[in-house]
Amino acid sequence: MSFADMSVSPSNPSISSSLSGSSLLVAWQLKGKTVLIVGGGEVASGRIEAVLSADAKIIVLAPAKGLHPRTKRFIELCPDRVTYYDRRFSGPAELYKMDMVLTALDDPSSSRQIVELCREQRIPVNAADIPDLCDFYFGAQIRDGPLQIMISTNGSGPRIAALLKSKLSGALGGYEGEAITRVGELRERLKERAPGIGGAVSRRRMKWMSQLCNEWDMEDLTQLDHAMIARLLDEGWELNRVPSLRDLGGKPKVKQGKDNPQSTIQDLNAILHSGSTVLPATLGFIAGGVSIALLLMYHRR
Amino acid sequence: MSFADMSVSPSNPSISSSLSGSSLLVAWQLKGKTVLIVGGGEVASGRIEAVLSADAKIIVLAPAKGLHPRTKRFIELCPDRVTYYDRRFSGPAELYKMDMVLTALDDPSSSRQIVELCREQRIPVNAADIPDLCDFYFGAQIRDGPLQIMISTNGSGPRIAALLKSKLSGALGGYEGEAITRVGELRERLKERAPGIGGAVSRRRMKWMSQLCNEWDMEDLTQLDHAMIARLLDEGWELNRVPSLRDLGGKPKVKQGKDNPQSTIQDLNAILHSGSTVLPATLGFIAGGVSIALLLMYHRR
Repeated sequence: MSFADMSVSPSNPSISSSLSGSSLLVAWQLKGKTVLIVGGGEVASGRIEAVLSADAKIIVLAPAKGLHPRTKRFIELCPDRVTYYDRRFSGPAELYKMDMVLTALDDPSSSRQIVELCREQRIPVNAADIPDLCDFYFGAQIRDGPLQIMISTNGSGPRIAALLKSKLSGALGGYEGEAITRVGELRERLKERAPGIGGAVSRRRMKWMSQLCNEWDMEDLTQLDHAMIARLLDEGWELNRVPSLRDLGGKPKVKQGKDNPQSTIQDLNAILHSGSTVLPATLGFIAGGVSIALLLMYHRR
Repeated sequence: MSFADMSVSPSNPSISSSLSGSSLLVAWQLKGKTVLIVGGGEVASGRIEAVLSADAKIIVLAPAKGLHPRTKRFIELCPDRVTYYDRRFSGPAELYKMDMVLTALDDPSSSRQIVELCREQRIPVNAADIPDLCDFYFGAQIRDGPLQIMISTNGSGPRIAALLKSKLSGALGGYEGEAITRVGELRERLKERAPGIGGAVSRRRMKWMSQLCNEWDMEDLTQLDHAMIARLLDEGWELNRVPSLRDLGGKPKVKQGKDNPQSTIQDLNAILHSGSTVLPATLGFIAGGVSIALLLMYHRR
């Protein structure tokens, strides 16, 4: 059940219990920020990757002998963004100008010490494998361009999170990231044409964008190139309507049955109950005919 | 593509581009924390719900005339956790002892002023509808007990995020939250039996738990009650093996084809290429036989 779907009324006894026990899932912005990663093993390498993807600068503190090959490769690959020091965490001075700290150590007491120093300076901190010390947890992630999906089990089952990641990846069509990119581009062009934050124009923009996303197939949104965006704004936004892809000279993609998780089943059911039974039925008809013909011919002799 | 799946090598040209442009998705912990929400409209009501679910205390600042009915109901429903003040944000003193601040105002300049005060005090802050001012964004969410899924479009398409939420919800079987709860319970019992953070015991625990989650169907994990957990630890962990559900006296649920997004297609393909073709083939055989028999009999007359 999602937050948005939850009906709230004092007479609903399920409300109080659902209003607890979860985390606040957020997409943290790290552009222009600096993140300290203490440790260089396999877990640290995953942290480096996630933090690099979020456009942060990184300081890695770890003795060279414990570096995971992936950690080494990130340090080599991004020398302008990853600064590596071949030593352990030495004290509070390491935290100077840090915006976030992640520890990935096999030594809980060192982690605890670092976390306490971070708390004093209000620096958000995560200590791998020690949930009690964390301001925030990580989860399994799916990424496709601007689309990011996080699966969090609130610390109860990292392996299940990984399994759910495969399942949910399989439910995606592979075009969602591109559709989001194109819609983001359209939104930017629309804001140039009808600027303003808050108020009536903001609401009208939001409503028109929503209507477009509802009426078009998600896959068709990937066809929104510069020319089509211009036409969509001229012939849609300006006239307060949502033209179809065909109206704009586009051709809807052949449905792959991916947009709706049910549709694959429906498509195959349709095949089962129509087209694909033609072949076995036809072969059966021929086989039956030939058999009876041979039988009758045999009897006639 | 997920972070974990990404192969990293300097010879792979796609790496550099994929190592940017995203957010760091995290599950923020708010238990025992206090969150200031400035505004009381529809957006604020969604924020209150998300923050309440994460077990935080909340201060709401908003003139009474602008309160959304849902905001009012949360204030009435949780008087011990939501403190409401019928006024606007008045200045830096409002931030005293706040762990996080969320603004949901129609007035960008007020939001900007609040955000600047938060920055000075290193308080994480989100200003609704003004991405440039945010330390973090929200996304569409799915929740099922301890399972939380966030869909973030990095600000490019909130409506697409909502559509993807429906799609991904449809790909879930409805038992995942319960499975995670049971596995969490098992993990706790296992930690009591084999305590320790980090080191060999921690790795052995992690490996055994992973093996269990891989070998059992996710739906079957929901059958892990207290008695079965005890047997699983005695007959599994202690003997360094993973017993099946049947070994423990449980009965696997009938597969609904939900665990693996491919399995529905595989199941139906199997039907297409075996069982279900028998009926049309048989009917075809009979029809063919009867037709030829009638034809030959007609010719004989």
